[in-house]
Amino acid sequence: MGRPMAHNLASAGFQVLGWNRTPAKAPPGVAEKRSIEEVARDCQVVATMLADDAAVESAAHVLYEHLPRGATHLGMSTISIALARRLAFEHAARGQRYVAAPVFGRPEAAEKKLLWIVTGGETDGLATIFDALGKVSLSLAEPWQASLVKLTGNFVILSLIESLGEALALVEKGGIDPREVMRFIGSTFLDAPAVRGYGGRIADTELEPAGFALVLGLKDVNLMLKAADELRSPLPLAGIARDHFLAALARGRENWDWGGLASAIRESAGLSPVRRG
Amino acid sequence: MGRPMAHNLASAGFQVLGWNRTPAKAPPGVAEKRSIEEVARDCQVVATMLADDAAVESAAHVLYEHLPRGATHLGMSTISIALARRLAFEHAARGQRYVAAPVFGRPEAAEKKLLWIVTGGETDGLATIFDALGKVSLSLAEPWQASLVKLTGNFVILSLIESLGEALALVEKGGIDPREVMRFIGSTFLDAPAVRGYGGRIADTELEPAGFALVLGLKDVNLMLKAADELRSPLPLAGIARDHFLAALARGRENWDWGGLASAIRESAGLSPVRRG
Repeated sequence: MGRPMAHNLASAGFQVLGWNRTPAKAPPGVAEKRSIEEVARDCQVVATMLADDAAVESAAHVLYEHLPRGATHLGMSTISIALARRLAFEHAARGQRYVAAPVFGRPEAAEKKLLWIVTGGETDGLATIFDALGKVSLSLAEPWQASLVKLTGNFVILSLIESLGEALALVEKGGIDPREVMRFIGSTFLDAPAVRGYGGRIADTELEPAGFALVLGLKDVNLMLKAADELRSPLPLAGIARDHFLAALARGRENWDWGGLASAIRESAGLSPVRRG
Repeated sequence: MGRPMAHNLASAGFQVLGWNRTPAKAPPGVAEKRSIEEVARDCQVVATMLADDAAVESAAHVLYEHLPRGATHLGMSTISIALARRLAFEHAARGQRYVAAPVFGRPEAAEKKLLWIVTGGETDGLATIFDALGKVSLSLAEPWQASLVKLTGNFVILSLIESLGEALALVEKGGIDPREVMRFIGSTFLDAPAVRGYGGRIADTELEPAGFALVLGLKDVNLMLKAADELRSPLPLAGIARDHFLAALARGRENWDWGGLASAIRESAGLSPVRRG
């Protein structure tokens, strides 16, 4: 996600410095730096788009030290609400600002500047950045609340994957082509982007290459369950999906799309994980 | 549902005879009869739209006896796949035809002839009837397969209700207005009729009057679980939703909308079943 987003910012006229764990991936117009420290020193806004809490927290420790006073750390990753709270506190203690801005949308949407952005915290002066990436669709008072909505949105998508996985296995056991049922559902009462995208993939059992990998899905479902713990709000659907993630990962499917949890549902119904022919 | 459908058939020029357990409910243009037997004797096509398996089976026993040879019993109710199989067998044994044609769409959609129809079985000669009611969106070989797709579609909607119920309780526990989150989800990655309809109702905790009552939802989820049994295809999400139905019904909410299973989710998160103010 980071690469098309950096490219869109550069195209919009921003001076963009980039850093990536794998070097030489900066898109045209983005000056690649050798460390987060080098990026932090000269920037008014530093956006992080990283895989998990550990990666974000490790970057944040550099930012605490090197980001100028008054500068903004824009957190665009999907992270725990506990870490979002901590980032807001630690940056504020140093006269810096933490704003959460997780995004919804597949990599293709990022390329087309069509991301749906959820902000958390005070966003003064950031509108032109958001405009270059997509559309602010929901604004919340606190950074951790934006992280919560991101996790909640992913929970709803995950529940949809689980539900369509169970539904399509059932009709296939009934001798019906799941692709036809999926076309029906996705063109009638559930005519929505996420349904057509994930549902089509599950019905076709086309689960590689990943848009969002199974192993990242497990990370996210654990963050959802952690948020549920902290807020004392049960998420039994997340528990079921988590077990299907584990069953799929137990069979070595780390790099399948997270829609691939449907493969474990298929197996529990006595079907082969991927349909043949 | 039956009333607007009968009205649409009469408006389309069909000669329509009606029967209802509660008399004097026939719409203009529909001749009301005193018994199913009276309806059956003179009709080429008899449609049943009844609440459950027991009501359909009891009507079917009259139809077996009184429907002319070559006439069609059009089953539009949501029934078990086992009963659908039995109806097809028993009608065929008497030279009659059983065609399943369950529909998706709320009562408002029925009024506007916008129902999505799933057919199962041989539908020769029925096109003008379907045209008067909505659109045939999926056609399957066997009547029981159409019943299965109807149950599966309701399962997907039910999973959505459960998922949105859990999601919105979680954000509310996080101090976020669930109505804002629902507007966000329903206008972005899940911009679909069923999401906006049920999600809006759950977010508003407006669960009366029922579009489809909780107690009918319990009936449907039990039919889904029965189909899952017969086809050996686990539906763990249906099990969770069933428990929430029972918890809501235990509190006397028979006549709430089936979106009202979210009230039990709210209670399990320590929230009042309906938001105040």
